[in-house]
Amino acid sequence: MDFSIRAANVEDCKDIARMTMELSEYEKVADQVKVTQRDLEQDGFSKNPFFHGIVAEVPEQHKTKDGHTKIGYALYFYSYSSILGRSVYMEDLYVMPDFRGKGIGKALMSKVAQLGLAAGCNQLNFTVLDWNKKSLDFYFSQGSVDVTASTGYHCMRCDGEALQRLAQP
Amino acid sequence: MDFSIRAANVEDCKDIARMTMELSEYEKVADQVKVTQRDLEQDGFSKNPFFHGIVAEVPEQHKTKDGHTKIGYALYFYSYSSILGRSVYMEDLYVMPDFRGKGIGKALMSKVAQLGLAAGCNQLNFTVLDWNKKSLDFYFSQGSVDVTASTGYHCMRCDGEALQRLAQP
Repeated sequence: MDFSIRAANVEDCKDIARMTMELSEYEKVADQVKVTQRDLEQDGFSKNPFFHGIVAEVPEQHKTKDGHTKIGYALYFYSYSSILGRSVYMEDLYVMPDFRGKGIGKALMSKVAQLGLAAGCNQLNFTVLDWNKKSLDFYFSQGSVDVTASTGYHCMRCDGEALQRLAQP
Repeated sequence: MDFSIRAANVEDCKDIARMTMELSEYEKVADQVKVTQRDLEQDGFSKNPFFHGIVAEVPEQHKTKDGHTKIGYALYFYSYSSILGRSVYMEDLYVMPDFRGKGIGKALMSKVAQLGLAAGCNQLNFTVLDWNKKSLDFYFSQGSVDVTASTGYHCMRCDGEALQRLAQP
């Protein structure tokens, strides 16, 4: 199937918000989603954006029954490791179910890798849920390693009231 | 003990590189360190920096036997969660051994939290090695949660030849 991948722009935020919700349902965290289309517009497409995005599109004749032609996306941002240096972090990688198995996810991830290398990054980082066997297998097939399993790195978070308390001098 | 915390500038990179090496030795990854003082200068202090930093300093009379007054630091950058929105990521938090137990680490982390909240972030993220019990206890005492343990998020990485291959169209 024909598809194209391009940089996301502010007009894509409605579709990205829709797909983010689909992804969060798949990941069973839909009840935690706070990010709206408006947040994506502000946070990704103003000065000093918090993330960048790419979208995968199919031609009109392959649109979904709901009329969607934007059927996949990835969000990413630049980050840093004091050990390895410049890094790119892939926050989301999503392809709508009917369009999987056609190389679209691989093409999106490849594009993030290209953009990262072009910016001088030495590594591409991301997180995956340990029960998400299909995604893990896909990522392993692309040469990724699970550094939580191999090295023992755990993801930590401070938010809500704990973050407010922590910030008090 | 008196100490102060301030934004890092390019002149601090020599000390940050020294302390990054000390931290990597503590984390048993010193053999993997590729980042030099020059990298830190370029990556953190040019246009569109990959990270920001803060340093902790003590007065001259408390300097180390090697003459250092910069005795701790944290690196951080802004990131994004498509679920929770704007985030700040703390890449490193380090205080030299002789200066621990005096609230300096807590003050550095608190500063990162303050900066994150001021930028509209809802969460502070970081990673920790699972065998680093002392650090884990410190972070738990500040209200942080281990989302690898609670939710199953694993840190994944693609680098080296795998990253080059992935980027090929």
